[in-house]
Amino acid sequence: MGAVGVAERLAEKQREISVSEFFEQNKHVLGFDSPTRALLTSVKEAVDNALDACEEAGILPDVRVELERLDGEEYRLTVEDNGPGIVKRQVSKVFGKLLYGSRFHTWSQTRGQQGLGISGAILYGQLTTGRPAVITSKTEKDDVAYQVQLHIDTKTNKPHVVSQEYEVWERASGTRVEIHLRGRYVTGRQSVTEYLRGTAIVNPYARLTFRAPDTEETTFQRVSEALPPPPEEVQPHPYGVEIGHLLRMAKESSARKVSAFLQTEFSRISARVAKAICERADVPPERRPKFLKLEEAKRLLQAFRKVKIMAPPTDCLSPIGERLIRKGLRNVVGAHRPDFYCPPVTRSPSVYGGHPFQVEVGIVFGGDLPANQPVELLRYANRVPLLYQQGGCAATKAVEGVDWRRYGVEQRGGRGLPHGPMVVLVHVCSTKVPFTSEAKEAIAPIPEIVDEVTLALQECGRRLKSHMRKRAQRAKTQEKFEIVRAILPRLAQKSAAIVRRPVPDIAKTITRIMNVVWVDDDVTFEDGRHRVRLRFHNYTGARKRLTLHTLLPLEALDPESLDPKPSEIRPDGRVAWRLPPLAATESSLVAFELRGLEEEEFAEVEAYVSGIDPSRVVGADPLPGDWDLAVEALQDETLLPEPQVLGEVMEGD
Amino acid sequence: MGAVGVAERLAEKQREISVSEFFEQNKHVLGFDSPTRALLTSVKEAVDNALDACEEAGILPDVRVELERLDGEEYRLTVEDNGPGIVKRQVSKVFGKLLYGSRFHTWSQTRGQQGLGISGAILYGQLTTGRPAVITSKTEKDDVAYQVQLHIDTKTNKPHVVSQEYEVWERASGTRVEIHLRGRYVTGRQSVTEYLRGTAIVNPYARLTFRAPDTEETTFQRVSEALPPPPEEVQPHPYGVEIGHLLRMAKESSARKVSAFLQTEFSRISARVAKAICERADVPPERRPKFLKLEEAKRLLQAFRKVKIMAPPTDCLSPIGERLIRKGLRNVVGAHRPDFYCPPVTRSPSVYGGHPFQVEVGIVFGGDLPANQPVELLRYANRVPLLYQQGGCAATKAVEGVDWRRYGVEQRGGRGLPHGPMVVLVHVCSTKVPFTSEAKEAIAPIPEIVDEVTLALQECGRRLKSHMRKRAQRAKTQEKFEIVRAILPRLAQKSAAIVRRPVPDIAKTITRIMNVVWVDDDVTFEDGRHRVRLRFHNYTGARKRLTLHTLLPLEALDPESLDPKPSEIRPDGRVAWRLPPLAATESSLVAFELRGLEEEEFAEVEAYVSGIDPSRVVGADPLPGDWDLAVEALQDETLLPEPQVLGEVMEGD
Repeated sequence: MGAVGVAERLAEKQREISVSEFFEQNKHVLGFDSPTRALLTSVKEAVDNALDACEEAGILPDVRVELERLDGEEYRLTVEDNGPGIVKRQVSKVFGKLLYGSRFHTWSQTRGQQGLGISGAILYGQLTTGRPAVITSKTEKDDVAYQVQLHIDTKTNKPHVVSQEYEVWERASGTRVEIHLRGRYVTGRQSVTEYLRGTAIVNPYARLTFRAPDTEETTFQRVSEALPPPPEEVQPHPYGVEIGHLLRMAKESSARKVSAFLQTEFSRISARVAKAICERADVPPERRPKFLKLEEAKRLLQAFRKVKIMAPPTDCLSPIGERLIRKGLRNVVGAHRPDFYCPPVTRSPSVYGGHPFQVEVGIVFGGDLPANQPVELLRYANRVPLLYQQGGCAATKAVEGVDWRRYGVEQRGGRGLPHGPMVVLVHVCSTKVPFTSEAKEAIAPIPEIVDEVTLALQECGRRLKSHMRKRAQRAKTQEKFEIVRAILPRLAQKSAAIVRRPVPDIAKTITRIMNVVWVDDDVTFEDGRHRVRLRFHNYTGARKRLTLHTLLPLEALDPESLDPKPSEIRPDGRVAWRLPPLAATESSLVAFELRGLEEEEFAEVEAYVSGIDPSRVVGADPLPGDWDLAVEALQDETLLPEPQVLGEVMEGD
Repeated sequence: MGAVGVAERLAEKQREISVSEFFEQNKHVLGFDSPTRALLTSVKEAVDNALDACEEAGILPDVRVELERLDGEEYRLTVEDNGPGIVKRQVSKVFGKLLYGSRFHTWSQTRGQQGLGISGAILYGQLTTGRPAVITSKTEKDDVAYQVQLHIDTKTNKPHVVSQEYEVWERASGTRVEIHLRGRYVTGRQSVTEYLRGTAIVNPYARLTFRAPDTEETTFQRVSEALPPPPEEVQPHPYGVEIGHLLRMAKESSARKVSAFLQTEFSRISARVAKAICERADVPPERRPKFLKLEEAKRLLQAFRKVKIMAPPTDCLSPIGERLIRKGLRNVVGAHRPDFYCPPVTRSPSVYGGHPFQVEVGIVFGGDLPANQPVELLRYANRVPLLYQQGGCAATKAVEGVDWRRYGVEQRGGRGLPHGPMVVLVHVCSTKVPFTSEAKEAIAPIPEIVDEVTLALQECGRRLKSHMRKRAQRAKTQEKFEIVRAILPRLAQKSAAIVRRPVPDIAKTITRIMNVVWVDDDVTFEDGRHRVRLRFHNYTGARKRLTLHTLLPLEALDPESLDPKPSEIRPDGRVAWRLPPLAATESSLVAFELRGLEEEEFAEVEAYVSGIDPSRVVGADPLPGDWDLAVEALQDETLLPEPQVLGEVMEGD
């Protein structure tokens, strides 16, 4: 056969591939590559949808997951929520058509975004069991619920309705999805229970009920009535918008002038900024966006980088927060009684490709955590626990790229997953989390995101190291102290006996040899109160005075308990005690109590000292020179810390 | 706002998402997550397409890649081939529409399969530069080439033709793609050059020319005229077909009877097998496939597992082969002069989800390879080197899951990537490689595939261990030997002097102390010939005889060079010498030459001995009890080694 025949023969085989066919053939891409994972993915997609719907509607979520084992590997999965429901005319499309949804064309921090998740699960279910999905939905306006049985027609990617009816449902509103699918139910780290537990921890305003096959029902109770504000929709930020995207937006815009187009279609472009951009780009502000030329669009893009534009709004992001991160870590660490809960680090929001994102990191270390294996990594994206594909994830890359040896953690060659008794939690939230695949189990290692996670890890690493240094320093001084205390008296006795003189008082000698101010902290928890005591021992030969600084959760601080009263309390939580002078060999105490926190929320005082040579202090760090700046950074979330990522200088306009 | 409002408000936002929009927003999923990777992905997609087209047309591929740096990060990529060309009416669809292609609905081992690759690159190019792609194509039937400039309309996923014309082209046939894109050109491991080199090695029948920015042209010359047979299309194998798929096939089949349907739509179902299946499933063979009920389809699926069905045909698979695997390894190992090229392992084909696949593994060890870092892993899928996403790949999972400590390789805790001077190559070929994402850089860890790779790695590990054991044993014996040889004569001399007697001959005493038969092999390579010498030293006190067994590439063996003549040569390559009895302290030699192999193809003789207590032999292994079986397994590729994966007993029908 000649080449002519081949081109023609190949031409005959050319065909369009429907998106359903594509994902049916590539079901592993959607997270359905094994029966175990397929089951988990289906639950995740349904629960993520339920939580998103409730949050959008401002309803405290109440989600029930039920898993029944039928014959062999066939399961019936039912997920029911108390969300706003779906209007009848769209039920079959939302569930029976891939790439159909409400969140793709808007930018907001939601769990689902693509319109692929739940319809993917239904596609997988019908592929592996041949059975239709059953959807029941009721909006508050409806008197009865609408129920539809449907298949997905993979050739056309359209719902094929098998039957529909109406039924009485006592709920005010809600949605129930019932899917038959092939699965395997397992327990352990990558299980439905773990996913639900992980979800419950970082979504404490949700009540999640799970009926697993052959077991009792488990309920993760709601522990907070505070629903986060509904996710804000935002416009794309000018940084990171691509030229092709800009051209298309211009072409599709209803604005009649470029200046208006810039203001309406992008976030953070005011009239003044739009004018500056047009000037800089040498594009007339009254030009019609539709007729924008490639070269003009390019110049606009360059002008975005030259003109000062505010960082993207961050009120659209909803981080987990320190308290829940500690709680999440505690849940996993369980009975291992770690030595140290490193104070979690929340980075200021940053931007990639026009999308704001924010990174949080928490670390626990020591105790009975297994020492002789790689550290455990807990990953979250938009408050959803990620249980698979750890290898390819931005979080993993960042952990592997940090030189942990600098923080006293074992790591062969200074690269790769460190070893030791440590658990690391990483959360990335964004109006668009860039997942490596449609299974949404790994965050693509976009440089901006890896960098932010790395900075947060390094900050946690420094905190960890400081903790370990303090501990080592104390242990060493303690040892020295005990040796000195054991030997000197005997030396004194022997010498006195030899020269036949009375035994001298050597307390001052001991302190002169030690020559440190020793700071001990002691935190106990009882009856919902943390009792904190900081004791200062002057083991030097001279009077010493110093100022103690710390950062406390003021809302939990009991003012009555403060003893002595601090010399300063700032609204940002900085508390300082200018302590009275302490004579040689004397000691003094600072005590206070916190109430209303959970136990793991306060495990160790971060103590800093000033007004004294810090090298003579054991048990507290010198007050950092950037103490003011550091605290400010925590307050001011609109300042972006990595301006080189975003272009030139940035300021509000 | 009440829940009613919410459901209605959400309903207004529900929309269909075009597949182009989807991938534009998720371009990282297609492999465009950084400028560096985007450049490589674009080259890969174009070159893979070119190679596929040439192979399908039986044309020796001649592919030219040119990369010009324009301003900033903008590049112009041009890839031109001598393939069959594309008929005019389909050019714009093939390049201007995602999910359009010739290979999705057929099953064969091709590089491209989804109709996503090259159109994805064009989508990325227009997004990042705003410029159209230019395609030129000519089939042998055409007098002039057809050239089209096009954009992809992302809202509709359809080509938008900017201009078209005809031009004279001296080629008989071929295709040229020109894309402007944002990229970053780098050298090193994940570079275009490395990808092309890796491709050239395992596709030696292709000529690849690369003009990189600001450098001379590089050509990877064709080193073989032997084009592999064009990839065979196969029908799905009954094992692994899902119920939903079976129902859909039945519904769409033009066959009028279930028995005919089974025979025409599946591979390995003969009339007899179809009848047996229908009987077992209690489905009348003359039933119309269209009306097949769910329960009947389920029973058919169960019957597939009960009735003996041949393994899938394997002539549709095209593994790389031992020779090219060694060559590929040698290229990477370069100047590190490793100690040992482990003979590569090619597994028999197996099946997942109805798709046949086959695994090959090669290992090199030692020499100057860096010892203090994780081993290097080279991954290939359908003869394409995989350079990204190592973490999530089935090949990586398998390497990490093997306990390498058992084979003498360092690995902390017996899990994870081992450390040491080792390079591992893994190739998976299949009529459908299950990639974790559309970027096609990692193979999904499907249990069947991970298992096969694991078995191949373990086999390589055993070979490595045997080599290392032999080496250690020899070194130890050598040391003992040298000590004995140094000390005994001096002892004899001293003793003789003391008792004033002549110095005795102690050669026999030495051998009695050693008490081994020592086997030395020596392979030299010169003028395209491997000269192999095996020397046997009898360091025991008695006459010894033994039979030497080895496996040789008969096509390369020079019969004239065999000295002495073997006692047996089997067509499968097994060669045996029954050696004449060897008196104590004597030695003998076996020599032969191989011609026409490349140097790295034969580095060490696998020597086995029988007819002698193997514990008395240093430098050769005892003949394995399953020697016959092991060799047979290499010959008989239709036997599947892991029947539990495939169901019950299997035999030809």
